[in-house]
Amino acid sequence: MNISTFLDNVRGTTPLVHNITNYVTVHDVANILIACGGSPIMTDEPDDVEDITSICGGLNINIGTLNKRSIEAMFLAARKASELGHAMLLDPVGAGASRLRTETAKKLISEFRFTAIRGNISEILALAAGGTSTRGVDASVADAVTDANLLVKAAFAKSFAAETGSVIAITGAIDLVADATRCYAVRNGCPRMGAITGSGCQLSGMMTAFLVANREHPLEAALAAVCTMGLAGEIAESRLQPGDGNSTYSDRIIDAVSLMDGTTLDKGAKYELL
Amino acid sequence: MNISTFLDNVRGTTPLVHNITNYVTVHDVANILIACGGSPIMTDEPDDVEDITSICGGLNINIGTLNKRSIEAMFLAARKASELGHAMLLDPVGAGASRLRTETAKKLISEFRFTAIRGNISEILALAAGGTSTRGVDASVADAVTDANLLVKAAFAKSFAAETGSVIAITGAIDLVADATRCYAVRNGCPRMGAITGSGCQLSGMMTAFLVANREHPLEAALAAVCTMGLAGEIAESRLQPGDGNSTYSDRIIDAVSLMDGTTLDKGAKYELL
Amino acid sequence: MNISTFLDNVRGTTPLVHNITNYVTVHDVANILIACGGSPIMTDEPDDVEDITSICGGLNINIGTLNKRSIEAMFLAARKASELGHAMLLDPVGAGASRLRTETAKKLISEFRFTAIRGNISEILALAAGGTSTRGVDASVADAVTDANLLVKAAFAKSFAAETGSVIAITGAIDLVADATRCYAVRNGCPRMGAITGSGCQLSGMMTAFLVANREHPLEAALAAVCTMGLAGEIAESRLQPGDGNSTYSDRIIDAVSLMDGTTLDKGAKYELL
Repeated sequence: MNISTFLDNVRGTTPLVHNITNYVTVHDVANILIACGGSPIMTDEPDDVEDITSICGGLNINIGTLNKRSIEAMFLAARKASELGHAMLLDPVGAGASRLRTETAKKLISEFRFTAIRGNISEILALAAGGTSTRGVDASVADAVTDANLLVKAAFAKSFAAETGSVIAITGAIDLVADATRCYAVRNGCPRMGAITGSGCQLSGMMTAFLVANREHPLEAALAAVCTMGLAGEIAESRLQPGDGNSTYSDRIIDAVSLMDGTTLDKGAKYELL
Repeated sequence: MNISTFLDNVRGTTPLVHNITNYVTVHDVANILIACGGSPIMTDEPDDVEDITSICGGLNINIGTLNKRSIEAMFLAARKASELGHAMLLDPVGAGASRLRTETAKKLISEFRFTAIRGNISEILALAAGGTSTRGVDASVADAVTDANLLVKAAFAKSFAAETGSVIAITGAIDLVADATRCYAVRNGCPRMGAITGSGCQLSGMMTAFLVANREHPLEAALAAVCTMGLAGEIAESRLQPGDGNSTYSDRIIDAVSLMDGTTLDKGAKYELL
Repeated sequence: MNISTFLDNVRGTTPLVHNITNYVTVHDVANILIACGGSPIMTDEPDDVEDITSICGGLNINIGTLNKRSIEAMFLAARKASELGHAMLLDPVGAGASRLRTETAKKLISEFRFTAIRGNISEILALAAGGTSTRGVDASVADAVTDANLLVKAAFAKSFAAETGSVIAITGAIDLVADATRCYAVRNGCPRMGAITGSGCQLSGMMTAFLVANREHPLEAALAAVCTMGLAGEIAESRLQPGDGNSTYSDRIIDAVSLMDGTTLDKGAKYELL
């Protein structure tokens, strides 16, 4: 399997992705979608979302900075996207950190089958179980996926994939990407990615484009997006000059995605089937 | 005619521009307004817009990520700005892509005379005619302004300018800037500008500042803004280093606008009266 | 007193800060909070803010792009944060420029005791007195703090601090940071910081993290944040290359904050007790 095939399919088809997403990282989500070969459109007005979703191939729902209006829009868009058979992704930002976020995310996955759900380990645990130690929008250290607990966490990811019918992507120092029967671990990326806002949101946007362009292979599409993002983070770090800090690093990640070629991706992707 | 005169007038007067704009590209709109010599202020709350518009010289209405509240704010602000004789610009983002966007934009131009309307060709066609093939927020290839159809498209732009009483700026590979009797074609810019989000939104914000600072010459003011943006895109491209991608390019455009001097602009502006 | 102690305390405790802030500069606020060692979370939905504020240590309320929903959220979050004894900061963006902004800011400070209030001189005057000449979101030249009026402005700052029970931070070419009995003047920063959007919003976000991490010393915490921001602006300017303009400068400020070390800060901080 060449990971680059799934990126090529994005670049060859320019999938339109409808994003209902938070206003903190929305600009980066738009830019990374273009950088990977997709095309973004944003709207969260209930009277607008069904029309916009209809002309797209995928729907990315991110619950950061959710509000009553955007929640209504999420359900309307998800219903329309479901009817049309679109690829759908849920990013449960801050699930476990507030009742509204946890309940909104749980209600969405109970009413709709998402193609993929991507979050940090604490957010995914909050959806799966309820009890959690989410610390705001960052994962709790206690929950972290490590070499010591890798198989236990992989079993959890597969089990939650089976329960939801979704590909489950849990991102952190080690990423897990699972469907009901298989789980990949990815070791791309670097700690500095946690020092900028929105790398998770960006990955969710980009992953939606990969899911649209690779409808027959959602697990591999999600895996390829995770590898692309992590490798971009590594390339961005390698290009830093003395005096370059967080903001330059953030720009360099999107730069690296826009310049990513298939050979680099296939060579740099570090994944294994557990 | 020196294009730079119109930029000088922005820098000499620091026009305050009220923007009701989408949350995807709003940060870039604010920064490019400052970069060209203007001063931005944003608000989309109906209870706030009339006060804020009153202290400004221009109003930039961009319908991307519109919602019921911001639509109400658009009409209140437009009414107040009309009463005060302010420069007003409409950017019909995504007109043709949803009923709400098309109808909101049409209603705005039926109730108010905008100094200028700026969009891509598909958006402008959607306002003029109704039938369109808008693909999300990007123009349809079938609609594109080309050398082969230049005079036909220019005639359309002039006709729509006559109908609306507005300067019509249609941007793409070749840009058209028309009033009822004259149409300029601009050949600045580069394809890479389509690979970042918001170059159109940025141009609309900047154009509003040009319209405020050059109230007697709206056609030339719009033309100068189009040339400034396109030339900044060219300068930004010329400064890219190996490894620089989309995000660095986006920063470089605003850098180039902030550093644009009159001599460079006059020498680099590529426009012709059709 | 070493200014760097207050930065060290941020880095050592990673304070979580809840931000109800405008959508123009929110991304930079998030990134500078991470850059200084804090952790940001944003929500402005009334049904979400109390839960989110509860897991944080500080609340940053910025009234730019306020709306009816976010205003309701501001009061709910402020009430909860007050009950929990959290550090609270108010940034009265555009107070004096519209009735809604002035009244909202005044109502907030009449109902809650903020740990600090940070604004430009025109905004602070608008809160203190009413009559003002705020020009949009920028300070009026007539109001500016200068060497000639420094002691008069310091007396005003101390008086307003006594009235509100808050540390008052007035930022401009010369910054003032005062409590009821002491006022510091800070001479870090450079004029170019006024040529980008959001340096004030960023400072408010960062200052909130400093207040959380230094609960016993709010005056010094606010002073340290002001010095850090101004020095970062100087470092950013010193790193500009030919062709670098406003957007690169903006990135460089956050870069400099993320790389700021204690020795550099202590050596570069330019403050005096008046």
